Amino acid sequence: MKRIGIIAKLHKPEAKAILQELLPWLMARGVEAVPDEETAKLAGMTGAQPKPDLPGLVDLLLVLGGDGTLLSVARLAGTRDVPILGVNLGGLGFLTEVTLEEIYSTLEAVLQGTYEVTQRILLTATVYRQGERIAEYVALNDAVINKGVLARMIELETYIDGRYVTTFRADGLILSTPTGSTAYCLAAGGPIVYPTLRALVVAPICPHTLTLRPIVIPDTAKIEIVQNSTDENTCLTMDGQVGFTLRHRDVIKVVRSDHTITLLKAPAKDYFQILRTKLHWGER
Amino acid sequence: MKRIGIIAKLHKPEAKAILQELLPWLMARGVEAVPDEETAKLAGMTGAQPKPDLPGLVDLLLVLGGDGTLLSVARLAGTRDVPILGVNLGGLGFLTEVTLEEIYSTLEAVLQGTYEVTQRILLTATVYRQGERIAEYVALNDAVINKGVLARMIELETYIDGRYVTTFRADGLILSTPTGSTAYCLAAGGPIVYPTLRALVVAPICPHTLTLRPIVIPDTAKIEIVQNSTDENTCLTMDGQVGFTLRHRDVIKVVRSDHTITLLKAPAKDYFQILRTKLHWGER
Amino acid sequence: MKRIGIIAKLHKPEAKAILQELLPWLMARGVEAVPDEETAKLAGMTGAQPKPDLPGLVDLLLVLGGDGTLLSVARLAGTRDVPILGVNLGGLGFLTEVTLEEIYSTLEAVLQGTYEVTQRILLTATVYRQGERIAEYVALNDAVINKGVLARMIELETYIDGRYVTTFRADGLILSTPTGSTAYCLAAGGPIVYPTLRALVVAPICPHTLTLRPIVIPDTAKIEIVQNSTDENTCLTMDGQVGFTLRHRDVIKVVRSDHTITLLKAPAKDYFQILRTKLHWGER
Amino acid sequence: MKRIGIIAKLHKPEAKAILQELLPWLMARGVEAVPDEETAKLAGMTGAQPKPDLPGLVDLLLVLGGDGTLLSVARLAGTRDVPILGVNLGGLGFLTEVTLEEIYSTLEAVLQGTYEVTQRILLTATVYRQGERIAEYVALNDAVINKGVLARMIELETYIDGRYVTTFRADGLILSTPTGSTAYCLAAGGPIVYPTLRALVVAPICPHTLTLRPIVIPDTAKIEIVQNSTDENTCLTMDGQVGFTLRHRDVIKVVRSDHTITLLKAPAKDYFQILRTKLHWGER
Repeated sequence: MKRIGIIAKLHKPEAKAILQELLPWLMARGVEAVPDEETAKLAGMTGAQPKPDLPGLVDLLLVLGGDGTLLSVARLAGTRDVPILGVNLGGLGFLTEVTLEEIYSTLEAVLQGTYEVTQRILLTATVYRQGERIAEYVALNDAVINKGVLARMIELETYIDGRYVTTFRADGLILSTPTGSTAYCLAAGGPIVYPTLRALVVAPICPHTLTLRPIVIPDTAKIEIVQNSTDENTCLTMDGQVGFTLRHRDVIKVVRSDHTITLLKAPAKDYFQILRTKLHWGER
Repeated sequence: MKRIGIIAKLHKPEAKAILQELLPWLMARGVEAVPDEETAKLAGMTGAQPKPDLPGLVDLLLVLGGDGTLLSVARLAGTRDVPILGVNLGGLGFLTEVTLEEIYSTLEAVLQGTYEVTQRILLTATVYRQGERIAEYVALNDAVINKGVLARMIELETYIDGRYVTTFRADGLILSTPTGSTAYCLAAGGPIVYPTLRALVVAPICPHTLTLRPIVIPDTAKIEIVQNSTDENTCLTMDGQVGFTLRHRDVIKVVRSDHTITLLKAPAKDYFQILRTKLHWGER
Repeated sequence: MKRIGIIAKLHKPEAKAILQELLPWLMARGVEAVPDEETAKLAGMTGAQPKPDLPGLVDLLLVLGGDGTLLSVARLAGTRDVPILGVNLGGLGFLTEVTLEEIYSTLEAVLQGTYEVTQRILLTATVYRQGERIAEYVALNDAVINKGVLARMIELETYIDGRYVTTFRADGLILSTPTGSTAYCLAAGGPIVYPTLRALVVAPICPHTLTLRPIVIPDTAKIEIVQNSTDENTCLTMDGQVGFTLRHRDVIKVVRSDHTITLLKAPAKDYFQILRTKLHWGER
Repeated sequence: MKRIGIIAKLHKPEAKAILQELLPWLMARGVEAVPDEETAKLAGMTGAQPKPDLPGLVDLLLVLGGDGTLLSVARLAGTRDVPILGVNLGGLGFLTEVTLEEIYSTLEAVLQGTYEVTQRILLTATVYRQGERIAEYVALNDAVINKGVLARMIELETYIDGRYVTTFRADGLILSTPTGSTAYCLAAGGPIVYPTLRALVVAPICPHTLTLRPIVIPDTAKIEIVQNSTDENTCLTMDGQVGFTLRHRDVIKVVRSDHTITLLKAPAKDYFQILRTKLHWGER
């Protein structure tokens, strides 16, 4: 680990102070810190690189922020094999499972090579209009198709591996990775899916038909959705961050990406421990 | 019952044929049929009146369509004391509980005065911007505040009778009458509320916090919601049909309306029978 | 308030210490403390009365324990008009909303007459076997009919006000007051019902048919359930505390009781505040 | 396919008539029909074999009944590699996906060798008392631990692969295969799991803590549950058919069995088609 890329969430006031302490700490250990341009400006650092290039230039990406920040970095790092370490600036995240108190002990372990990683799958969603491929996106949590604000519901004709499933009449449809199962999908009634299970979740949002429950399928499945409603504001959203407006009869194909991303795990913190903390298990 | 207003859903192909049979039937019984303008054009009728005026001109409003058509008529009829009879052109509705087969036997009973009615409450939603009242709407089913298609969630600071309830972080919030409890609210996880119970339902849509369950409150409650998110596409929707775009810090007050509407009931069909049919009870 | 009945949950180790401090405090204010027999033994008090007689002998019942303790006292106090003050020995309860820290300030207010009360309805469940009334019970939270441990499901043929609702095929059926809506009924998917709404909840437990959602009905409803399964271990349970074994074709009638109970409210603590604390609203 | 074992559900009146037609049909095609003892008595057949021996004596097990009948046969066939064909005597089952109308066309295909099969995993549950292995069972759908009829809830301390998950305070806990996901687990709020996904579902029944959602884990997981409550009527039930009474501190270990079972699929009927029919998708 000679070069560590650093991406901080700028709106967090703590970020600057942490960086001012962290940079000398890394330098003292012979590690070069490479910030993206915005982080560099925030911390008064030199040697900045454009954010999209960072994954290809460093041995580790250190993300200071919340799960949202890590999601955006993960989509960037998609095809690069660089591990990501998420440090949560406000408590504990599902993805940013290292807290501020643990940052130095974790980095110490990382520099000594004594750390664990977890591989997480990504989703690729491709949009076809009249047979032509017009857009393609990647997500770590979920690809969501949802109705415009004024529509009553949308109709999504859904196929898995070429076989017709049903036509969801709902506010929308969530296609989630195991990683995303504790995010939006959970709020829509989906199950918690163990992060390393090779599965995807197909979960309708407020379906008109009450028996349309979330479906868990192998992650090798090819999901194909025909946007069957005339609502002109139906949208495909990746990780709740990137949106694309769909038209009537657009076809959205969602599959597991060819690449995975590598997350560094917080030492001595397992998945169930994070669930217990985040979901207040043990309390009512 | 000397004058019956007639409002048909035009896109239903059956509507025209039914009208051509129904009008002579009514005339033969000395009843004047008064169509709204669009229905008159469809059926080649004379004596049309503008739809908003109809409730004040007739003894009964006959709606031929589905629950959606009846909802729009109900909002029009709000302050008039004219009863509404809903005939469903495609099966059975929660509100249009007379089927096509039952239309003449029901009208026979109506003309003889042997029918039952049910009073249903309406909601009034008023929007305040910087203290000023800028919009007011009525709904029979529900007033819904929901996020724009690209927003991740909205924040709705909610008060009931002046007391702080919570700040919902969710896709939106449904304020439903008992009538609306079997519509969108049911899809969002709400309970079925008996139509004559003096209650309202406050149901969050996909709340981030899983313990935020639907709340049933007395229909005398004054609900006040502060739209706390900066999403510029947040919307207030009445019965899924009329929308109004909200701004940051708009205040929405929702209360039971001063008027109720009167629905004619299908003879020999009780509420539970309709639930059993519509929700496939008795089957899995 | 000259005489205060005292009932403590004996298994709580704090109970004894509290009583030793509380009794002189009451005596110094000219209030006679009348314990039930078990509480007297625990605290070395004299003047004990049998628990069932206490409600008829005092001006206030002070319950030291949790919601479970208060439920058992409420059923005893059913037909007496004596108010109940619940002090929670471990945090905060939905019914025992006074915490240990607040006990003296609350009692001070009570003795000065400056307190608020809330009336809560009770349920009466009566069991008929071959037409004969064989058992009758009261509950503050809920009357629950559930299957024996080995049965796969039971069949409960259900009528409301003489009209057939459906035959629930489920683990059981909960008939809940608004008070009980935040107890077992919530775990079974029921809504939160505002305590003073004149309503009951009918909620199936794990119904085979997914569209069988909880139903909220007026509290004037007469509910009648025919236990239609041959499972010999089906049971009627009141507040999760008193049980009665049902036979095939037993009829259970559940109605609002003629009497209500009176709970003293904690000063300056409203219902939504208790919900927020107990259900961790505001957190995820 | 020279010898076909036949097991019929005796209480179904249609069973006898079907057998009387089926046996000559099989004989005419040179297939020996081997009934279990009860089926033989019902149909007046000879050559009966004890039910537990049948799986070892035949090339195919033909089950005439419902999903319940097939479940009991599947547990018997556990360690044998004999395929099972389920014919539903009353409609369509999730496991008995051949209807009565399809019986001969399906058997024709089977005899010609043109059929598809699906492998389904089984669960093995082993009970340890004070360290000693005292019982072991197999299930195709689910292993369920649930409370006695009078208990308010039980406490189940749960570990997966040696790591503590949580202590479920609930009516019980369902450990389900993908096959079982559309049975009891669905009623408890679980997801639909595609039958060939290598996964198990851990789903609490009416958990006190609302954030305790069903968890989907790899089917290689070792689940270990300590029955922590003193309720003497807590029970382990396999497929809702076989029960074992648990004591305080009993340990239940649940893992995927070493063997799978082989189900013959109905020709031209895919999983989603069965879901659509059974769960009324496409209707409300």
